[in-house]
Amino acid sequence: MEPQWFGFAAASLTTVSFLPQVWRTLRTRDTKSISLWMYALFTLGVACWLVYGIYLSNWPMILANGATGVMAMLVLIMKIRYG
Amino acid sequence: MEPQWFGFAAASLTTVSFLPQVWRTLRTRDTKSISLWMYALFTLGVACWLVYGIYLSNWPMILANGATGVMAMLVLIMKIRYG
Repeated sequence: MEPQWFGFAAASLTTVSFLPQVWRTLRTRDTKSISLWMYALFTLGVACWLVYGIYLSNWPMILANGATGVMAMLVLIMKIRYG
Repeated sequence: MEPQWFGFAAASLTTVSFLPQVWRTLRTRDTKSISLWMYALFTLGVACWLVYGIYLSNWPMILANGATGVMAMLVLIMKIRYG
């Protein structure tokens, strides 16, 4: 197995992983056990990855962090709204 | 400002962001609004990043994903335990 596949698997899994959280939170509107600070810091961090990816013109970084950023921001907004 | 600083800020923020979630979950033992699938897929993804970092002998990847992996796994274990 080519070692690069670990990179592709890693990027896919860490990006896709936020989908079930977004879905669960949209459905239940329950954000009680979710840390506001986690999603605030994480969304800011992913935004930095996105800016860095744009600077490097690196499409995998731009796409993965763009998608993750949207999902993390959705959870953050719901956390702020539902408490 | 050097563009690399966006990379350092990004890596630091996305790694450190899991600390408040671990702390909150350890303290409250409440994992109800957390998605099991998110933490299962995310922990597996971070493990792949770690393996890929070891293959590339890239210390920033190894350290950041090692730290994130431990924290994500803690939340996953608490989710499995507390439901």
